[in-house]
Amino acid sequence: MIYLDNAATSRPKPPEVIGAMTSFMTDVCANSGRSAHRLAVQASRIIYEAREAIAELFNVPDPLQIVFTLNATESINLALKGFLKSGDHVITSSMEHNSVMRPLRFLEQQGIELTMVKCSSNGIIDPGDVKKSIRKKTKLIVLNHASNVIGSIQPAEEIGLLSREYGLLFMLDAAQTAGAYPVDAQRMNVDILAFSGHKSLLGPPGTGGLYIRQDVDIIPLKQGGTGSRSEEEYQPDFLPDKYESGTPNLPGIAGLGAGVRFVIQEGIESIRKKEIELTQEIIDGLASIPVVEVYGEFESEKRVGVISFNIESMSPSEAGFRLDDEYEIMCRVGLHCAPVAHKTIGTFPDGTVRLSVGIFNTKDEVDMVIGAVKDISLT
Amino acid sequence: MIYLDNAATSRPKPPEVIGAMTSFMTDVCANSGRSAHRLAVQASRIIYEAREAIAELFNVPDPLQIVFTLNATESINLALKGFLKSGDHVITSSMEHNSVMRPLRFLEQQGIELTMVKCSSNGIIDPGDVKKSIRKKTKLIVLNHASNVIGSIQPAEEIGLLSREYGLLFMLDAAQTAGAYPVDAQRMNVDILAFSGHKSLLGPPGTGGLYIRQDVDIIPLKQGGTGSRSEEEYQPDFLPDKYESGTPNLPGIAGLGAGVRFVIQEGIESIRKKEIELTQEIIDGLASIPVVEVYGEFESEKRVGVISFNIESMSPSEAGFRLDDEYEIMCRVGLHCAPVAHKTIGTFPDGTVRLSVGIFNTKDEVDMVIGAVKDISLT
Repeated sequence: MIYLDNAATSRPKPPEVIGAMTSFMTDVCANSGRSAHRLAVQASRIIYEAREAIAELFNVPDPLQIVFTLNATESINLALKGFLKSGDHVITSSMEHNSVMRPLRFLEQQGIELTMVKCSSNGIIDPGDVKKSIRKKTKLIVLNHASNVIGSIQPAEEIGLLSREYGLLFMLDAAQTAGAYPVDAQRMNVDILAFSGHKSLLGPPGTGGLYIRQDVDIIPLKQGGTGSRSEEEYQPDFLPDKYESGTPNLPGIAGLGAGVRFVIQEGIESIRKKEIELTQEIIDGLASIPVVEVYGEFESEKRVGVISFNIESMSPSEAGFRLDDEYEIMCRVGLHCAPVAHKTIGTFPDGTVRLSVGIFNTKDEVDMVIGAVKDISLT
Repeated sequence: MIYLDNAATSRPKPPEVIGAMTSFMTDVCANSGRSAHRLAVQASRIIYEAREAIAELFNVPDPLQIVFTLNATESINLALKGFLKSGDHVITSSMEHNSVMRPLRFLEQQGIELTMVKCSSNGIIDPGDVKKSIRKKTKLIVLNHASNVIGSIQPAEEIGLLSREYGLLFMLDAAQTAGAYPVDAQRMNVDILAFSGHKSLLGPPGTGGLYIRQDVDIIPLKQGGTGSRSEEEYQPDFLPDKYESGTPNLPGIAGLGAGVRFVIQEGIESIRKKEIELTQEIIDGLASIPVVEVYGEFESEKRVGVISFNIESMSPSEAGFRLDDEYEIMCRVGLHCAPVAHKTIGTFPDGTVRLSVGIFNTKDEVDMVIGAVKDISLT
């Protein structure tokens, strides 16, 4: 079996990740930040160590600025809904995932004004177009760091500088880059960084979070018990408690911490290097098949390991079914929860076949996949 | 070591729960409801089976009416914020956890009117008082099924009937009863049932959910990718997708499903019978110590297995520290994220020492705890 659906969730997870989860469930299994007994203290320490690892990876000054959520979608909803007010203007790109588009469309109905800057057919935004869209009421730029459809990497650093220049907040959706590509929150002038825990950070599904720069004021999405300031019927106003109500996904965060430490140990540069190689091999292999169209940049250095393609006169779902059924190759087909991205690259409404590589994929697997696509496209 | 902090999270979890999580992470480890390959289909089936088990336990007609969230706090926020509109009046009790109080206090600042019905010093609400609080603008009654401080069980069925009679929505916070006490959503006329997955349902931390009765319209707390209607930039309007954006806590839900099946197999009646016995033994044992005050009803049939007490001239935190340090007994001290409940029973602001029993506690453990409390209260 060959798994190339890492952009949905990475697979397999390092044994350390599963070990950390099992060890939490078996040995600790207590709530953090609430009771004061030894097991509860142990749970709190494990959660704090995960914050530390993530803060290190994203070059965030203080681990307490890392907030845990259920997933990147929750992180994005938290930030968009808690920051934007009726009458505010927000700028986004035409390559966004529905985790950004759907909350923005919802907010539009509540009086937020939205500009969606059209990207090139290779999925890249022009900072000049962003600049032209800035108005007096503009408060926020929200941008997908890398596309979950074609892997295109946005010029985040330039957009960060632009945001700083105009006094706007800059929010980056790093769901597809965190753990696979360098993400330096301070260097990129990112004010809010949303991340997924179960993709390239190698944690389990059910983990995600966000970094919120100090002094950025966001109304929490949820209020509730935090184990802190228990005497008050109002939400505490300090991080991370302000945004973490109710019992967190403790075994999941334990696993995520182990995943991030695995990434740090491997080194982002070395992970990235391998991803570039495998991605280039897939692009070149697929592009050499006459009836196959590959979307996006052909230089793998300009993208993360997400490759979309189509086979002439074969629907994406048929191609996906055959790859699974005949070759045990797991990929994802269709619109990948990103209709605007497919409109941008011209593959709406049928979508594409998507291959997404992970840290554990090999050159042999990639060769077999290219062979399989060749086979099904010619028979 | 004796663990009596089950109201924070139950411990230990059945081996089946940890097994289901590990098996998900090792053998499946794919996203559900998104891709169509065999692993993704397997993930979707596991999640659906967890919905089925929960629907069976709560007597909910359709498993698709069970929505998964990060925790009960998220479930409560989702329902309160998605249903109540400015100008609406809501009734609650003076025994609520901050998972209800803090969102309500927040909503009050947004123009919602709130009545908090005072309960007896034993933590019980009088349905007559609730009836008297109903106004023309009243839309919802939200009630803690059993207190996380003293275990008092509310007359939920009577409140359900009252809600039905006045055409109000009835929301029950079953965080402390789900899995430990019979919860029949239909018989109790519950429209929205919020539950925690990691307490008596024996699932891992990071799981919870809610049942939403058909035709109850709630605006989602989050919008985003659902793997369904991917061509649309607006949130789908069918359950459970409407309320489940982003990747769910798949290993957690796998574990929760196993936990609920364990509860069903043991039988709620037999679980409840054992809890009544252990709870009565703790109450009687503690009450027999002259310098110890036990709060709430003395008949354990009137409460779930949560017992709060104080030792004369010893702070709850000192008592908790000594129980942990000298006897390896894990309990929780303080306000338990429920300041209004402590005001109601007269233990604000210092709080209490709380012992909470679980399905795996034994008579021997309970005897040792009573002995330990006796020791520290006399030395």
